[in-house]
Amino acid sequence: MNENGTFETGGRSHQKIEVGALSVPFREIQLTNGEVHRLYDTSGPQGFTAHQGLPARRAPWVAGREARGDTNFSQMHYARQGEVTPEMRFIAIREGVEPEFVRAEVARGRAIIPANKRHPELEPMIIGRNFKVKVNANIGNSAVSSGIEEEVEKLRWALRWGADTVMDLSTGQDIHRTREAILRNSPVPIGTVPIYQCLEKVKGRVEDLSIDLFLETLHEQAEQGVDYFTIHAGVLLRFVPLTARRVTGIVSRGGSIMARWCLHHHQENFLYTHFDRICALMKRYDVSFSLGDGLRPGSIADANDAAQFAELRTLGELTKIAWDHDVQVMIEGPGHVPLDKIQRNMDEQLEHCYEAPFYTLGPLTTDIAPGYDHITSAIGAAVIGSQGCAMLCYVTPKEHLGLPDKSDVKEGLIAYRIAAHAADVAKGHPGAQDRDDALSRARFEFRWEDQFNLALDPETARAYHDETLPAPAAKVAHFCSMCGPRFCSMKITQELRELAVQQGVDAEAARESGMGQMSQRFKDEGGEVYVPVGE
Amino acid sequence: MNENGTFETGGRSHQKIEVGALSVPFREIQLTNGEVHRLYDTSGPQGFTAHQGLPARRAPWVAGREARGDTNFSQMHYARQGEVTPEMRFIAIREGVEPEFVRAEVARGRAIIPANKRHPELEPMIIGRNFKVKVNANIGNSAVSSGIEEEVEKLRWALRWGADTVMDLSTGQDIHRTREAILRNSPVPIGTVPIYQCLEKVKGRVEDLSIDLFLETLHEQAEQGVDYFTIHAGVLLRFVPLTARRVTGIVSRGGSIMARWCLHHHQENFLYTHFDRICALMKRYDVSFSLGDGLRPGSIADANDAAQFAELRTLGELTKIAWDHDVQVMIEGPGHVPLDKIQRNMDEQLEHCYEAPFYTLGPLTTDIAPGYDHITSAIGAAVIGSQGCAMLCYVTPKEHLGLPDKSDVKEGLIAYRIAAHAADVAKGHPGAQDRDDALSRARFEFRWEDQFNLALDPETARAYHDETLPAPAAKVAHFCSMCGPRFCSMKITQELRELAVQQGVDAEAARESGMGQMSQRFKDEGGEVYVPVGE
Repeated sequence: MNENGTFETGGRSHQKIEVGALSVPFREIQLTNGEVHRLYDTSGPQGFTAHQGLPARRAPWVAGREARGDTNFSQMHYARQGEVTPEMRFIAIREGVEPEFVRAEVARGRAIIPANKRHPELEPMIIGRNFKVKVNANIGNSAVSSGIEEEVEKLRWALRWGADTVMDLSTGQDIHRTREAILRNSPVPIGTVPIYQCLEKVKGRVEDLSIDLFLETLHEQAEQGVDYFTIHAGVLLRFVPLTARRVTGIVSRGGSIMARWCLHHHQENFLYTHFDRICALMKRYDVSFSLGDGLRPGSIADANDAAQFAELRTLGELTKIAWDHDVQVMIEGPGHVPLDKIQRNMDEQLEHCYEAPFYTLGPLTTDIAPGYDHITSAIGAAVIGSQGCAMLCYVTPKEHLGLPDKSDVKEGLIAYRIAAHAADVAKGHPGAQDRDDALSRARFEFRWEDQFNLALDPETARAYHDETLPAPAAKVAHFCSMCGPRFCSMKITQELRELAVQQGVDAEAARESGMGQMSQRFKDEGGEVYVPVGE
Repeated sequence: MNENGTFETGGRSHQKIEVGALSVPFREIQLTNGEVHRLYDTSGPQGFTAHQGLPARRAPWVAGREARGDTNFSQMHYARQGEVTPEMRFIAIREGVEPEFVRAEVARGRAIIPANKRHPELEPMIIGRNFKVKVNANIGNSAVSSGIEEEVEKLRWALRWGADTVMDLSTGQDIHRTREAILRNSPVPIGTVPIYQCLEKVKGRVEDLSIDLFLETLHEQAEQGVDYFTIHAGVLLRFVPLTARRVTGIVSRGGSIMARWCLHHHQENFLYTHFDRICALMKRYDVSFSLGDGLRPGSIADANDAAQFAELRTLGELTKIAWDHDVQVMIEGPGHVPLDKIQRNMDEQLEHCYEAPFYTLGPLTTDIAPGYDHITSAIGAAVIGSQGCAMLCYVTPKEHLGLPDKSDVKEGLIAYRIAAHAADVAKGHPGAQDRDDALSRARFEFRWEDQFNLALDPETARAYHDETLPAPAAKVAHFCSMCGPRFCSMKITQELRELAVQQGVDAEAARESGMGQMSQRFKDEGGEVYVPVGE
């Protein structure tokens, strides 16, 4: 990447849509054979300092709605009224579908557009199983850690490696200021878990949490522009005992906080009992729900248990209520789930949450590899993505062990871009396989530079190649160090096609059916010469 | 690992079986709570130099057979005669099953025991879908690369990270000597692709290859003790045209060599036409077939095409012939396959190859991530493993780009141990989940050292933890740097269980159903206090 944040061989191109100054970004890869390959791009406008923030290009769209006196700003609200918003048109171009399709999916609740009206730096995107599978990256300081500049740098780094949304999970002193800096520099939706800030406000005394404090905190964050809130409203008092025999109990921070509150007061979860007040606030900003899975399994042993599925059904109940307010909803999912139990998660979610988009953390398919949970979970993520999960929350190599640094964020995102793309290809998502095909053609034709530039991580691919064969000539060589010239199967295959041509079959025929003719001649001359038989 | 090659907290333990000096190895992890966790172990006897080689402890078993004048040494041969060999008893202990079950699976052809009688250093193991999923690692120098000492060191490194078998894919000058050193130092089965050495012998002139040269080379390698041969006998002349329209043609080295030979001579593949002569040689040593998939797809675009499945059916035909000789067989599989097309590979293989064990390379589930193909392929490997694939050939981060170094070998093996274990857990393989459960219990109880020692890679897990919290006290702390003390859900859950106890429920009841009683009381006092409704 050069200093402008673009790849050396390509750049950020745009397609204008008519409202305001906002244009739809793509990343263009210029190939050496003259082709141009266009990719979905999340990296955002380049060249602005953290202090400046990004230009507020979406502001006019919101201003129009405020001017006409709207009170429900939710994209679902507009969709249900038949209005195709500029956000929907932007997304339609970005995803390569019709604007009306975007509207219909949002109206149906099968997709969401997290887009707080107070987040004018946003380049709108959509989460739903009939669109590209998305990836979320978590950042944020903890009590033990880092500063604001560092968090903005982490945000940009996450965008550079393809994060579609970013959750700010900060829990330290400077929560408000950190979040402000992140929002003003983010072209992607930002999610938070508001209960964390509430807990800071009551100095960690869980029992002092209340709905009023919660609503006040939601208001504060909604004003800043947060696009979606994780809210653990499905952790009901009567579900807590269901976790008593678990190997790893409650592993969600928000879930354990709410369980403790319920048990302390021996009252029902105030997020559940006051859910309609929360909805009323969220629609005024168009903040989307990410209904938290506070009782998700934290180990293979606890997967798909009664606590998990009891909460899931409650999340479905809450989805209906949110939809009554035209508030957008996605549903969070596990966690730790063995491969054979993943499909049931998807099935139960679709059934009980009425096809609201599913957003899972992995799932991790085994517990035995701390230090490599980006891999244990990319396996589960790819599988559930191919089954219809709409967004995958990344896991870094530091999961369970410590705070991710830049290298971990990159490793986690690459693993999850792989999972999301493998899911898109498996679902037959239109155009998804084009990049695989372009890269494989480049590989077969020994266009090494094209192969690198089409890769998820061009720098690493190039560096690995150059470790063994650093000479510039090797970039056009018809082999690599893996097999050497004599054993390069692709080289032999190309020669083999030439051989077919020499043997009197013209080039096109050789590609088409020429070798088939030769084989036919072979068969005509006696067919299978020899049928081996056992002794 | 200390200088004796054992983990700091455990070591290699053995269980004697009665024949000769060979004992069944396990790795024991001693936990801080007094429990001992026993793991399957491939690392082999420690403390021998590369020059010394390993002790030939299996020699007496073979000597007995030679003394009684056997001519077919294949484990399948003995199994079919109802004989439970020491190898089978060894494996039964290793896998935790009955010896008779091992015998029956081998007799049926559903599992193989690659165990050349000339490989007395071997600790026998089994490949079949009713046993633990196995992982193969490829090593070997190429024209561009490395020496003998280095290859033995790579072997040991691969064993240390859990390789169940190792393929020596050397193609350079010193093939014979390198292979000798590897065999004399290997406690695991060694596989080769003999056509590579044949091609060296004819100085790269594919057209000069012949069945006589091939049989001579098999003899040379069988005498050395190679346990399985990859043989591309299914690449038939009439299948070659089926690859003409592929995006990446033929990507198997052996496959492209044989295709070229067929086309040059316009004759059928001599490995196919002389297959029974090959079988006759292999049974004298008990070398197993790994029937090569020379026409496997090398890109997502080419997955599950006519060429691939035509060859697969031919491999099934050859399986029957090998079985007529009592020669053991496994079947190699792809390659590059999107997630939605993996199940069909497994189905077709089981049907057309009569349940002979399947041994796949990945499959890679997307082409777009060179530099990360250990991940793109671990996804596919875990899925096909859970569907019944018996052995997974690892892929390193250098795949498609260059030769793997030690770090790549480790990364590849960890990714594949994850895939194999995720598959075992998904299949409900007896005992597989025990390690997950032990690690998760350690995690929940903040036994950090146990968590590290139960991990696939203890050093990395420990290092990641220590990056943020290096103090010794943090190893017993009831939180980690991820969430900090205030937000640690596991800590809160434990406190929550204590709270339940304080509220008048005894400890056991709290774990069992105590919190259920509290919830019942709650319900008795009015049940669901509030049912939220939409505006």
